[in-house]
Amino acid sequence: MTFTTRRKVRFQHCDPAGIVFYPRYFEMINSVVEDWFAEVVEHDFNRLHVESGTGVPTASIETRFHAPSRLGEVLEFRLTPLATGRTSLKLRVTAYRGDERRLTSDSTLVFVDLASGRPLPWPDAMRRHFAMDSQ
Amino acid sequence: MTFTTRRKVRFQHCDPAGIVFYPRYFEMINSVVEDWFAEVVEHDFNRLHVESGTGVPTASIETRFHAPSRLGEVLEFRLTPLATGRTSLKLRVTAYRGDERRLTSDSTLVFVDLASGRPLPWPDAMRRHFAMDSQ
Amino acid sequence: MTFTTRRKVRFQHCDPAGIVFYPRYFEMINSVVEDWFAEVVEHDFNRLHVESGTGVPTASIETRFHAPSRLGEVLEFRLTPLATGRTSLKLRVTAYRGDERRLTSDSTLVFVDLASGRPLPWPDAMRRHFAMDSQ
Amino acid sequence: MTFTTRRKVRFQHCDPAGIVFYPRYFEMINSVVEDWFAEVVEHDFNRLHVESGTGVPTASIETRFHAPSRLGEVLEFRLTPLATGRTSLKLRVTAYRGDERRLTSDSTLVFVDLASGRPLPWPDAMRRHFAMDSQ
Repeated sequence: MTFTTRRKVRFQHCDPAGIVFYPRYFEMINSVVEDWFAEVVEHDFNRLHVESGTGVPTASIETRFHAPSRLGEVLEFRLTPLATGRTSLKLRVTAYRGDERRLTSDSTLVFVDLASGRPLPWPDAMRRHFAMDSQ
Repeated sequence: MTFTTRRKVRFQHCDPAGIVFYPRYFEMINSVVEDWFAEVVEHDFNRLHVESGTGVPTASIETRFHAPSRLGEVLEFRLTPLATGRTSLKLRVTAYRGDERRLTSDSTLVFVDLASGRPLPWPDAMRRHFAMDSQ
Repeated sequence: MTFTTRRKVRFQHCDPAGIVFYPRYFEMINSVVEDWFAEVVEHDFNRLHVESGTGVPTASIETRFHAPSRLGEVLEFRLTPLATGRTSLKLRVTAYRGDERRLTSDSTLVFVDLASGRPLPWPDAMRRHFAMDSQ
Repeated sequence: MTFTTRRKVRFQHCDPAGIVFYPRYFEMINSVVEDWFAEVVEHDFNRLHVESGTGVPTASIETRFHAPSRLGEVLEFRLTPLATGRTSLKLRVTAYRGDERRLTSDSTLVFVDLASGRPLPWPDAMRRHFAMDSQ
């Protein structure tokens, strides 16, 4: 149940030390979550945010950077759902170059109504795509 | 001689008005130039910057935004070399969604030695890939 | 009638060549325009965008980068209105370090209704702050 | 021993939901760490990275976002050193608007030689500024 996609380390991601500046990793991680919602959960971010007035803000995120990534490298990102709550979702995202793990990031998203900011229960149409590995 | 690539308008590109925040377009444009150097000029940015100690800073850029782009749209970017100087290169980048042009950006890059900041003549190995439309 | 503010060149602005990555300059320029709207035009971007449902998208921008800027430098940005149209505004932004000019950027903003994207005439409460140098 | 600084939530930080896009918080957090190194540790990032060939990459970071921040708000960031290792440093950064805490971020930095990527012991000239609250 792991979703996989790739990102190239671009000039815009790298700092004066020639390695990825860590806030740019969070842009990549968010884009991986975005692709997963579009391709696996079948609710793209435009539909979620603009048409439905809902959002999936990140409530917490815990990330370890195992080794630096350099300009021009292609990273494989893997996203796995870890646990589903009534209104929340815990995800693990890892990035690899070949066999070398570059980062591990565990985050908790919450499904919210954008106008009120209040958590909403996941609709079944979304929840049924959050299949866990044990299923 | 036009190089074409696509970019999806992501959450990270959009502002509170729900459209692309224009500085993000320049990240996209730079990434298109980066791909063109890697795929057409056959000198990727890692080789250029890290291995060779050279760079291609943008000396000037002039951009018109014809219509806004929205979350989830896929834009087609087209890059065409316009003119080559001894140490510089003029490029046009346009972005389209379907038939609708979203931006036109003309820029001048300069080939420089990173340590001194001084312009360098383009090596023939690069220059021969800057073929103009008329050639 | 020139508005002046400062920006420090931060780690997040710099590329693997150790100089400001030009898309980051546009973030700085936009933040200078944002400060000018808040402090001089007396309409901050929250009031404009969120409360009033209006926006000031950039229709075109033409920028020359005269010399690179490096990590830790403090740049002085100067904003001068150049011309006011019924629904548009032309601005010049320059950045200096000491006497050395780093960039010159001329842009045209348009006042729009966010819902329709249509241009709106500048309200007098805003327009009266667009005083030109010759006035 | 807490270092305090402020950041305005700017247009460039906000997403289509009108709140800070969380990767932008990491740019703010990094800039707070940057200011602390310059003002408290008395080693600015230019001296560290460019002149000394050293760096302080983030090895891990764990962040909770307690409440969203909106365009135009001014956040107070507070940085407190939590623990010092031979080559590492644990920091807590919090952000408040008034009494409301917006985020809590605990990170571990490592002092490294940029060329080799190897950890280095903190020089005494830096370490003596990492005074903990209990001291």
